[in-house]
Amino acid sequence: MKVNLKLESGLRIVGTNASGKETYFDSLPEFGGAGSAPTPMEIMLEAMCACSFMDVVSILRKKRIEITKLEIHSEGERATTNPKVFETAHIIYELTSPNAELKDLERAVELSHATYCGASAMFRRAGCNVTWESVLKQ
Amino acid sequence: MKVNLKLESGLRIVGTNASGKETYFDSLPEFGGAGSAPTPMEIMLEAMCACSFMDVVSILRKKRIEITKLEIHSEGERATTNPKVFETAHIIYELTSPNAELKDLERAVELSHATYCGASAMFRRAGCNVTWESVLKQ
Repeated sequence: MKVNLKLESGLRIVGTNASGKETYFDSLPEFGGAGSAPTPMEIMLEAMCACSFMDVVSILRKKRIEITKLEIHSEGERATTNPKVFETAHIIYELTSPNAELKDLERAVELSHATYCGASAMFRRAGCNVTWESVLKQ
Repeated sequence: MKVNLKLESGLRIVGTNASGKETYFDSLPEFGGAGSAPTPMEIMLEAMCACSFMDVVSILRKKRIEITKLEIHSEGERATTNPKVFETAHIIYELTSPNAELKDLERAVELSHATYCGASAMFRRAGCNVTWESVLKQ
């Protein structure tokens, strides 16, 4: 896969994928940015969560589980010295569904992290302690 | 740091950082998505590049090097079996500047990967072979 990035102004960067879809990155004012977009490391954490999110949606849909709402709340902690890698990432999967059982969500999440999610595998191989929990709302 | 993600429709997901800045993810039509936004793994590669990009901009500016234009072109290859982690990532840094020498860019890039860039460190610790080259245009 190919991606391109260019500097817009300050530390604001636009990334473009092969089909021209854009993603914006910026830094915080205390680091010389304008805070106009998420930081690269925020987006890296989001990308890992989104990768697993898509697995979970696909697995639930194959089991004909209706997804009224699905959200992820994640918190990551980075090293305090350079390079500031993620040391922990906790992911809460919150499903609202009229016909799901908690174990359906739990199994989908486990399967994503154990088998499918390349981004989760990379975080864990890099030494990040990735943990998760499942919450069902009906 | 905290991030939140929610499913919009299909496999389109919106991620939101703590200050409400949004990032969009989608999957390709062959995997059930609409291709309305980059994929999580495209954005993960972009986030790694953007992290290093910001280091390079900051280092060049500290050396009073004028940045007329700075772009990154990156190509990543993923494993062919699950989990489809990145196995290689090549990054081309292309600087247009009236007062830079090629070695200024090369040193900034080296310093980013060797010391500062948490995302590059995570890719490499996860087993990805990250390589780079510097191109100067004047």
